Amino acid sequence: MYKTHNFSAGPCILPNNVLQQASKSIINFDNNLSLIEISHRSQPFDEVMNNAKQLVKDLLSVPLGYSILFLQGGASLQFSMVPYNLMKINGTAVYLNTGTWATKAIKEAKKFGNVVVAADSCESNYSSIPKNYTFPKEYNYFHCTSNNTIYGTQIKNFPSLNGIMVCDMSSDIFSRKINIKDFDLIYAGAQKNMGPAGTTLVIIKDEILGKSGRDIPSMLDYNTHIEKNSMFNTPPVFSIYVSMLTLQWLKNLGGISYIENENIKKADLLYNEIDKNSIFEGTAQKEDRSNMNVCFKLKDKSKEQDFNNMCNNAKISGIKGHRSVGGYRASIYNAMPIESIEVLIDVMQKLEKK
Amino acid sequence: MYKTHNFSAGPCILPNNVLQQASKSIINFDNNLSLIEISHRSQPFDEVMNNAKQLVKDLLSVPLGYSILFLQGGASLQFSMVPYNLMKINGTAVYLNTGTWATKAIKEAKKFGNVVVAADSCESNYSSIPKNYTFPKEYNYFHCTSNNTIYGTQIKNFPSLNGIMVCDMSSDIFSRKINIKDFDLIYAGAQKNMGPAGTTLVIIKDEILGKSGRDIPSMLDYNTHIEKNSMFNTPPVFSIYVSMLTLQWLKNLGGISYIENENIKKADLLYNEIDKNSIFEGTAQKEDRSNMNVCFKLKDKSKEQDFNNMCNNAKISGIKGHRSVGGYRASIYNAMPIESIEVLIDVMQKLEKK
Repeated sequence: MYKTHNFSAGPCILPNNVLQQASKSIINFDNNLSLIEISHRSQPFDEVMNNAKQLVKDLLSVPLGYSILFLQGGASLQFSMVPYNLMKINGTAVYLNTGTWATKAIKEAKKFGNVVVAADSCESNYSSIPKNYTFPKEYNYFHCTSNNTIYGTQIKNFPSLNGIMVCDMSSDIFSRKINIKDFDLIYAGAQKNMGPAGTTLVIIKDEILGKSGRDIPSMLDYNTHIEKNSMFNTPPVFSIYVSMLTLQWLKNLGGISYIENENIKKADLLYNEIDKNSIFEGTAQKEDRSNMNVCFKLKDKSKEQDFNNMCNNAKISGIKGHRSVGGYRASIYNAMPIESIEVLIDVMQKLEKK
Repeated sequence: MYKTHNFSAGPCILPNNVLQQASKSIINFDNNLSLIEISHRSQPFDEVMNNAKQLVKDLLSVPLGYSILFLQGGASLQFSMVPYNLMKINGTAVYLNTGTWATKAIKEAKKFGNVVVAADSCESNYSSIPKNYTFPKEYNYFHCTSNNTIYGTQIKNFPSLNGIMVCDMSSDIFSRKINIKDFDLIYAGAQKNMGPAGTTLVIIKDEILGKSGRDIPSMLDYNTHIEKNSMFNTPPVFSIYVSMLTLQWLKNLGGISYIENENIKKADLLYNEIDKNSIFEGTAQKEDRSNMNVCFKLKDKSKEQDFNNMCNNAKISGIKGHRSVGGYRASIYNAMPIESIEVLIDVMQKLEKK
């Protein structure tokens, strides 16, 4: 059924029927024209853009007063767009440092003003999520990363604050229920749970904009894209289309509450095996374990070659851990079937019995 | 043979065998995995990136000392990246204003410093390319737009200058011979002659960088992307892959010298008809006519509905002129077959005879 079990951290597995439909649309999307050779100003693409937005709205129950954008440049460009739009001149922003991506976001924000790092879990190599940190009296916004792909940690309870809440949800958006009203700006690169690389989803509360006092380059100004319905310039047509298909697939399945249950089931299955299998151990603190990226290692490193070979033979792909953590990482995003996790568990059990 | 004759200005027609190959790769690119679900750090995608770069190098004879990048954000983001990287604090840049896109580039540059507009053809609604303009004594760079899609004009002879030469070649790169050594920075959105929307080609002379004295956001710093081989962050995998296929198609056909001849043949055929057909007229000054975008109109506007209907019946698509010029625009990029132009000419002749 699944020829290759794709545990890649991103770009990553997409639903099979989405791939089939995308493949067909490359040949004939509308009136015998390919999806990628029609004008982005044409009615068929306008419908794609509006459908994609509506699906985001429906799936996440986005309330009035928020705009939904499909941009380019990934989370990495958001690292600069956020302070450009939200950090006042001589202002202060508060960041939570939970890993490599948060560190990169902090680096970019420092080019615009003062950054206060509320808490940092680098001493434990980001194996946990800091809690009970405090906020300065005045700050322009707070920024956090909801899920840390490299370390396999995930914020289970977001801090409550009075200020502006910005969250990089690149690797767990659409995987679990969130209350949009708790956030003022959410951004996410598409290439985990939303679609292929090449577009970035931004959900933003309109009223927080226009207050930084900066002369923002048009392409970095959220208001530019809000005014033009994400079509100030030619949008990444293919990536937005495939994102639309993937969100439609999710809605058809039963939406966020359905997939959240599935994701919990899948993650529990794999974490249970890691905990009971005598030769493996998890690398993230239990209470902060990510339901998207399951990081683990062999207690005895000499068994790695054996495990790698067995994974290869079982057609398990993309399971190598990030070089900064080592070991293994099974990324089990929305589109990952439980069957692939069972194949992985089977290999883990066979190695234990050897 | 060609079910629809796609004269769209961009995104636009792509070679049929490129579409076929792209469609297949969405299903199975490598080891039964889709192109859009593999890691961008995997060897198969690394090869795509390196092949795409090598094809640019080969097709345009890019000399040593230049870097080739595949970025995101289109020409519109380049409008800001260029001054961020090249305009010194309190520096001056010189721009040639040949239309809407040049005007947008100027608007963004003004956010960074002084802009001198060397010449501006707005009084003739950009129907010609200014010539014989002068340069100030000192400036950080000169910026021009090689082809103006909206107005159907094209720079045939680039000015020679001692300073840094920056050119937006979005709509005619890979369509004609250029001497890369005459330029220091060339950029081009993919969605005309290179591939689908979603990536931007940048060819840059390394030695011009690092001199603006600005603290550039990492994603807007060309050096960031040079150091990481365009993989500082997740690249737009699909757009780069299809660009690679399109450049390979061009190389297989015979490269730039072959396609330049074809493009001249195709443009001549259509312009000859416009000039000899008594009911049509061209809108751009003859010596500045673009070989990519052929703009024309009916002398008698009341015939438009008739012409539109005849075009529809002949399956001619995307021929409506830009709203700022009116009339018609036939975009005849590299992948446009001469047969489609013949169909258009046939319709024009039939209307004349009516």
